[in-house]
Amino acid sequence: DLHQQENYFSRETLDRLSAKRTDKGWLEDKQSDPNTVYLLFSNCSPMVSSPLEDHNAGGENQLCRFRYETVKDLLQKHATVLIFLGVERRKKPSSQTVDGVREPPAWFAINTDEDTAELLKRCREKNCCFPKTLNRDLLKFSEEEAGVVAQARSVLAWHSRYSFCPTCGSSTRSKEGGYKRSCLNSDCRSLKGVHNTCYPRVDPVVIMLVIHPDGNQCLLGRKTIFPVGMFSCLAGFIEPGETLEEAVRREVEEESGVKVGPVQYISCQPWPMPSSLMIGCLSVAISTDIKVDEKEIEEARWFPRQQVIDSFRGTRPAFTVPPRQTIAHQLVRHWIGMISNL
Amino acid sequence: DLHQQENYFSRETLDRLSAKRTDKGWLEDKQSDPNTVYLLFSNCSPMVSSPLEDHNAGGENQLCRFRYETVKDLLQKHATVLIFLGVERRKKPSSQTVDGVREPPAWFAINTDEDTAELLKRCREKNCCFPKTLNRDLLKFSEEEAGVVAQARSVLAWHSRYSFCPTCGSSTRSKEGGYKRSCLNSDCRSLKGVHNTCYPRVDPVVIMLVIHPDGNQCLLGRKTIFPVGMFSCLAGFIEPGETLEEAVRREVEEESGVKVGPVQYISCQPWPMPSSLMIGCLSVAISTDIKVDEKEIEEARWFPRQQVIDSFRGTRPAFTVPPRQTIAHQLVRHWIGMISNL
Ligand SMILES: Nc1ncnc2c1ncn2[C@@H]1O[C@H](COP(=O)(O)O)[C@@H](O)[C@H]1O
Ligand SMILES: Nc1ncnc2c1ncn2[C@@H]1O[C@H](COP(=O)(O)O)[C@@H](O)[C@H]1O
Ligand SMILES: [Mg+2]
Ligand SMILES: [Mg+2]
Ligand SMILES: [Mg+2]
Ligand SMILES: [Mg+2]
Ligand SMILES: [Mg+2]
Ligand SMILES: [Mg+2]
Ligand SMILES: [Zn+2]
Ligand SMILES: [Zn+2]
Repeated sequence: DLHQQENYFSRETLDRLSAKRTDKGWLEDKQSDPNTVYLLFSNCSPMVSSPLEDHNAGGENQLCRFRYETVKDLLQKHATVLIFLGVERRKKPSSQTVDGVREPPAWFAINTDEDTAELLKRCREKNCCFPKTLNRDLLKFSEEEAGVVAQARSVLAWHSRYSFCPTCGSSTRSKEGGYKRSCLNSDCRSLKGVHNTCYPRVDPVVIMLVIHPDGNQCLLGRKTIFPVGMFSCLAGFIEPGETLEEAVRREVEEESGVKVGPVQYISCQPWPMPSSLMIGCLSVAISTDIKVDEKEIEEARWFPRQQVIDSFRGTRPAFTVPPRQTIAHQLVRHWIGMISNL
Repeated sequence: DLHQQENYFSRETLDRLSAKRTDKGWLEDKQSDPNTVYLLFSNCSPMVSSPLEDHNAGGENQLCRFRYETVKDLLQKHATVLIFLGVERRKKPSSQTVDGVREPPAWFAINTDEDTAELLKRCREKNCCFPKTLNRDLLKFSEEEAGVVAQARSVLAWHSRYSFCPTCGSSTRSKEGGYKRSCLNSDCRSLKGVHNTCYPRVDPVVIMLVIHPDGNQCLLGRKTIFPVGMFSCLAGFIEPGETLEEAVRREVEEESGVKVGPVQYISCQPWPMPSSLMIGCLSVAISTDIKVDEKEIEEARWFPRQQVIDSFRGTRPAFTVPPRQTIAHQLVRHWIGMISNL
């Protein structure tokens, strides 16, 4: 089964052109190119405009886009972090324009600590803001913009938390278009050879739908911080020296007491809060007694298939389903879709 | 297809009992328990004994195991790092011993900077050493010990490279059985909320066998550092904001110029040098021209299936295959097994 589900935050809107990260001249040319697109972040939150006055009222968010002229003063500031995101993908190789050789626009993201009220004045769009409730507001983009946000926010969050060298404690500086940080202490071990301390971190997480041995129920749980009535898939960080299949078995048993046998990978989702990779699996339980780890999970339950279907349809919901932008939603939908099309 | 291939470094020999990491009293009891097993590392290399005089002559390595009495002086030293690995899994629930309630032995790993010649004297086994060529010597364990080594070495390597707080540059100290480091600066942002700076790092990597559109050839490449004649799968780090499928497409195109369409996850392998998770995939090319990135790859080639089979069999080898302990080996074997059993 090679058909791949596309999850929110997964679209590769830009071509990362990683080879250009070490080409200083090219990067500098692109920075001042009038076609270049800049995104503006404050405290790792992107400036967005909303078609509606009320940001809480649903509706799609749009990234505010800037030209070089509007942000070039920020590029001079010491606290500004700049990262190269990539270039727009050419729509079709055949679509020729009059100036057919023009290169596609480059995109950069800037994180700045300047006053946000002043920053908002730079934008011509309506209803601009830097959203505060990121785990809700970052879910309101188009698929294209969500992909860019996933990349930009993960890398910017890394810069904001990793500005000192973990190996020696000295300051570091950003290099290679923002994809590397190098220690400023010339004696540091991190400068000899290749070390992960210099590169952005990606935290692999397993997230799994556990199927009851009878094939007709699935295990969902809730954390205290979830909205009232919402149940979702269990999840946890993959530990060092562990496969994703073993991580599924360990986390399910830790959090719910349920033992898991076979595990099957389904699809994955970058989750830029700050920089996780959610690896989505279906798995089959080989025991059924539930004993939750109360440090992490408030409640876990077996839900019969029909209750799950009703909850997704919204007809007689037994519980609130996680938002469609989450891989948890897609995993459950995948499972019920395996049996009955919604 | 739920049948799962087991890769080297993947066996979960111990039960990690992660809930006990925060139970100081329990951990201290286990540390001085005469049944507890200690492994000794120097510079993140494990002390091993070899049945053969010559460590280079093949043959299995065995981890040297110590009791509390033999290592307790090391536990007092400031530079020693101690991590709790877990407890032995009970063989069968039904296998009762006379003292049926005895808890299974706990395992710890110690990393020390004491003189290695002196450390070796502590062991009663023959031909002990701390191997230097880890990418070869760590491949010589039994499946059981390889699993423990993967966990221990990844976490110890993290301690050795992350002893300073990346957020503020202060010193940190080990906590929770060695699974956390906390900043000693009480004003540090890393102490408010949960941050990945405090937890061991796992770097997800994609490693892929690319199949030619004709279905009858596969793409293998070699780095300059490979042994003469060896070809293996392409591989690369997953970047922030990227799915594993997109990482496969990007890395293959970057390294070989070949474009990839469908991607299928096969299995994964922890790779403790220092702390990668190799995510193994099969993928199908949608273009065939090769243009290698000479910074990373010396040569890449399409190999016809029959040449691959001959090379695995050792009859008229067209190239040297990667060692059986690597997931690259298993991916290629999986592909030729799909067609003809070896
Ligand atoms: N990379 C990481 N980032 C954040 N928390 C982590 C990480 N690794 C382990 N943890 C711990 O894992 C807990 C969440 O549990 P789980 O997601 O089920 O593994 C957090 O509260 C942390 O104590
Ligand atoms: N976590 C990481 N650890 C080590 N090297 C990394 C990491 N992330 C990116 N790199 C870079 O990736 C290169 C290896 O290329 P690849 O494995 O093909 O992605 C290294 O030489 C580094 O420049
Ligand atoms: Mg969890
Ligand atoms: Mg966990
Ligand atoms: Mg957990
Ligand atoms: Mg590579
Ligand atoms: Mg790479
Ligand atoms: Mg590469
Ligand atoms: Zn340093
Ligand atoms: Zn700190």
